[in-house]
Amino acid sequence: MPGFDDVLAAAARIAPHAHATPVLRSRTLDALAGCELHFKAEHLQRSGAFKFRGACNAVWSLGDAGAARGVVTHSSGNHGAALALAARTRRIPCHVVVPEGAVAAKLAAIAAYGATLHRCAPTIADREAACEQLRRATGAELVHPYTDPRVIAGQGTATLELLCTAGPLDALVVPVGGGGLAGGAALALAARAPGTALWLAEPTGAAETAESLRRGERVTGFLPDTVCDGLRGTLGAPNFGMLSRHGAQALVVDDADTVRAMRLVWRHCKQLVEPSSAVALAAVLANPERFAGQRVGIVLSGGNVDLDALPGLFALGR
Amino acid sequence: MPGFDDVLAAAARIAPHAHATPVLRSRTLDALAGCELHFKAEHLQRSGAFKFRGACNAVWSLGDAGAARGVVTHSSGNHGAALALAARTRRIPCHVVVPEGAVAAKLAAIAAYGATLHRCAPTIADREAACEQLRRATGAELVHPYTDPRVIAGQGTATLELLCTAGPLDALVVPVGGGGLAGGAALALAARAPGTALWLAEPTGAAETAESLRRGERVTGFLPDTVCDGLRGTLGAPNFGMLSRHGAQALVVDDADTVRAMRLVWRHCKQLVEPSSAVALAAVLANPERFAGQRVGIVLSGGNVDLDALPGLFALGR
Repeated sequence: MPGFDDVLAAAARIAPHAHATPVLRSRTLDALAGCELHFKAEHLQRSGAFKFRGACNAVWSLGDAGAARGVVTHSSGNHGAALALAARTRRIPCHVVVPEGAVAAKLAAIAAYGATLHRCAPTIADREAACEQLRRATGAELVHPYTDPRVIAGQGTATLELLCTAGPLDALVVPVGGGGLAGGAALALAARAPGTALWLAEPTGAAETAESLRRGERVTGFLPDTVCDGLRGTLGAPNFGMLSRHGAQALVVDDADTVRAMRLVWRHCKQLVEPSSAVALAAVLANPERFAGQRVGIVLSGGNVDLDALPGLFALGR
Repeated sequence: MPGFDDVLAAAARIAPHAHATPVLRSRTLDALAGCELHFKAEHLQRSGAFKFRGACNAVWSLGDAGAARGVVTHSSGNHGAALALAARTRRIPCHVVVPEGAVAAKLAAIAAYGATLHRCAPTIADREAACEQLRRATGAELVHPYTDPRVIAGQGTATLELLCTAGPLDALVVPVGGGGLAGGAALALAARAPGTALWLAEPTGAAETAESLRRGERVTGFLPDTVCDGLRGTLGAPNFGMLSRHGAQALVVDDADTVRAMRLVWRHCKQLVEPSSAVALAAVLANPERFAGQRVGIVLSGGNVDLDALPGLFALGR
C-alpha cells in the first residue's frame, strides 16, 4: 500500500517529465452548479490523461537493470498510451497487450508513442495470460493500470497540485473506475486536506464502487455498460481498501447526464474532455444540495475522445 | 484610422475586463508542421472569441452620456455576443440586429448576455437599415464589427500580448474575414515586430482578400461559400488599406483542409476551436516550405462551434 510519502516522492520523480496542469474556472458553470468549481485540467496532461502521472512514476521508479528490460501492461485505453509515452521518456521498451476489437485510433496512439502492440482475445483472463507470458519472455516489469502502488502514488500528485493551486476545498469529486486516481486522491487529502470530502463519481452502468462501499466488501463480476470507456475497469482490491477506510462516498450518474455535462465543458470552457472526465461534473450538477455554495475541486481526467463516435455520443445526451 | 497608440490605449482600457489569454504549444503539431507554433488562445477569451477585445474597447471608449444610450450592431455571430457581453460589463443597453434564419444557439448566446435582439430580413441592406433605424430611435452608438477604429485597435491587443508572451516571431498567421483582427495585427507588428511577416489565412469560398491584394484594389460582391462562418464578411475598406500598405500576404485554404486542421487542434491540444480559427493552422500545414523551421504565431480566433452541426462538418474533413 502506498502512503503520502510515496505521493511526495512521485511528485519529485515525475516533475521533469509531466506537466503541472492548470486549474480552470468558468463563471457560467459556477452559476449553473451553484458552487465554485475548480477544474484540474488533466486532459492537458501528456498523453491526454492523468494516467501519465502513475505510469511515469512507475517507469522512473525502476532500477537501471530492471528498466532496461522494459515494461508491460494490458490496456486499450489511456493507461496503455501513458505507459508507452512514459517508457519513451526513459528510452526503454514497452509492451502493451490489447484486446481484439479495440478502437483503432486508440491503438494507433499507443503505437505512435513507440510501444509494441500484442493482440489477444478480449477477455480479462486472456489479457492477463498474455501479459504474464510477455513478462516471462522479456523480463519486462508489469505495471498494472490501477492496483500498482507506484501508479496510485503517481495519480495522487494530481490532487496534490490541485490543492496547491486552488487552495482549501470543501469537496473533491473524481471519476472512479479501477480506483487509481481516487486512491491517490485519498492519500493526498488525508495528509493535506483532511476536512475535504472525497466524492467518487461513477456511471450507472459500472457502479460497483457504490455497491462495494454500501456493502462494505468489494463486489466484482459486473458487466460494465457505459459510454465512459475509461471507467469500465473493476475497482481494485487495494483501491477499495483505501477508499473505504478514507470514508469516500460514491455518486452514481446516468450516461445521458454525463454527455450533457461533457457538452457543457466543451461549450463553456472550450476544453475537449472525454465522457469519463465529465462524469464528475455531472455528479455535482445532479446533486446541487450536496455542494451548494462550496468550493469544489473536480479532476477532468482525460481528453481522448473518439471524434468519429461523436454523433452517437451526442444522441445520448439530448 | 487607428494607430499603434490606440492599440496601447485599448490594452489599458480592456485590461480590467478581458482575459490575457495563454499561448499554447504542442510538440505533435510542431512535428507535423515542421516549425514552432505558438497558438494565441483567443477561443478562451470572454464570449469565446477575440471579438470581445474590440467590442470592449469600443464600449469603454464612450463618454458616460453616450454610453448611457447604449450600443447597436448587426451580427448573428461572435461580434454580436462580444458586444452584448462588453455592454454588460458597463451595464449599458445593447441592441443586436440579427437576420432571419440565423443559428438559434448563437442568438440564444447573444440574448443570454443581456442584449435585445431585433430580427430583420437576411440581406446586408436590410441589416444596415435596421441598425440605422435603431440608432436614430435610441441614440445608441453603432459599433461596426471590423471597420470601427476602436474595434481594430482592440483586436490589435491580441497580437501585442502574443508578442510579449511568445517572444520574436518569424511569421504571424491570422484568419481574415472583415479584417479587424488582421488590421489590428498589422498595427502591432509594424510597431513592435516589423520583421515578422503577416500572413492572412482565408477560405477558398470567401477569398476576396487574396483577390483584393492581388489586384491592388478592394474587391466586393463575393458570395461567400465556406464553413468558416466567422469569415464570411467582406473585407472592410479601412482594413484593406491597412493590410495592403503593411504588405500582408494571403494564403487561401480549402474548407476540407480547415476541418482537418480543426480536428488536429481538438485531438492534440484538446482545445475546442471553431473552423474560422483552424484556417490559420491549415494555411501553415498546406504551405510547409514557407514556414519550415520558423517561429510562427497563430491566432486561434474563437471556439464557438455549433456542436449539433458537427457530423456535417466532420464529413467534410475526411
